[in-house]
Amino acid sequence: MIAGDLERLIQLLARLPGLGPRSARRAVLHLMQKREALMLPLAAAMVRAAESVTLCTTCGNLDTRNPCGICQDVTRDAKLLCVVEDVADLWALERSGAFKGRYHVLGGTLSAIDGRGPEQLNLGGLAARATTAPSGVEEVILALSATVDGQTTAHYISERLAGSGVKISRLAHGVPVGGELDYLDDGTLTAALKARRPA
Amino acid sequence: MIAGDLERLIQLLARLPGLGPRSARRAVLHLMQKREALMLPLAAAMVRAAESVTLCTTCGNLDTRNPCGICQDVTRDAKLLCVVEDVADLWALERSGAFKGRYHVLGGTLSAIDGRGPEQLNLGGLAARATTAPSGVEEVILALSATVDGQTTAHYISERLAGSGVKISRLAHGVPVGGELDYLDDGTLTAALKARRPA
Repeated sequence: MIAGDLERLIQLLARLPGLGPRSARRAVLHLMQKREALMLPLAAAMVRAAESVTLCTTCGNLDTRNPCGICQDVTRDAKLLCVVEDVADLWALERSGAFKGRYHVLGGTLSAIDGRGPEQLNLGGLAARATTAPSGVEEVILALSATVDGQTTAHYISERLAGSGVKISRLAHGVPVGGELDYLDDGTLTAALKARRPA
Repeated sequence: MIAGDLERLIQLLARLPGLGPRSARRAVLHLMQKREALMLPLAAAMVRAAESVTLCTTCGNLDTRNPCGICQDVTRDAKLLCVVEDVADLWALERSGAFKGRYHVLGGTLSAIDGRGPEQLNLGGLAARATTAPSGVEEVILALSATVDGQTTAHYISERLAGSGVKISRLAHGVPVGGELDYLDDGTLTAALKARRPA
């Protein structure tokens, strides 16, 4: 007995990651109570973003400009190229403020299970950016997940760029800042112990 | 460095119940990947629902019709009136298929802490529906939460309708179907024991 227009809205919202049918119903009731303040602005923001935001053809970032703001920013260090799986990882690194080079977004990892091979990822562009003569890239930082697929992808990229003269590095493994040893898995503890440094 | 149009979309999505900043970012990336299949249809569904769906002035349900489909449905039992806190509860009862009467949506509960008094709820309409001469209502079922506020509201309504000749009932307390005794609170166990029935 839910009105068709509401039912359709619930079904579409339930397709967002993190929302199921139950939370989609709650979200719709919340939206209906805040039509002018939230629902219509949200719909307008979606239409606007769908029109204005594109993939940067250089790095794969999402931006209203192409090349994106980061690729265009001459104050960023063109010698450092950080390879990430997706835009969420780029955002996470930007929030940290710890990286001032440029990015290359792969759009995923190699995955035998999901059937994603090198041709499904933004890999051709990476080799061209990293190795073509006047690129200026001196170091490629592989900031990929510490999962089997992430590390397989890192290994594949290392092999592919080997012999190009570009330095290739990975993120350090270790104890997360604020993390308690008691809650860490054996792999992380082993890695942190192996990579110990003088205090 | 997130584009302004994306940032605004993230902020609006993060205001939905069940989504925080992190899941809103993930949702936006998902939407950007499915512009035609999800993002634009979702925006259109929001605009459509905002235009077409209204509160039923009889019962407080949300529907494209006013009076709503349930109030208009002559096959439903006009003798039974089920009082619920909000439309989500009405939907839950409709999903169960266990109730074939009509509803009255209060729009919340009385709450001393949140400062909600009787005039903030859809209570005047309830008294009129339940007690005006040709209403045909014989029983008001108070399907309110088993919380302090819910039970306070149930008590208030009982008092207000007392002497009107309408029968007033509440949902039974007891062991949830599929529930394990070990995990139940003392209040529920006590209520279930008190209301025990011949096997």
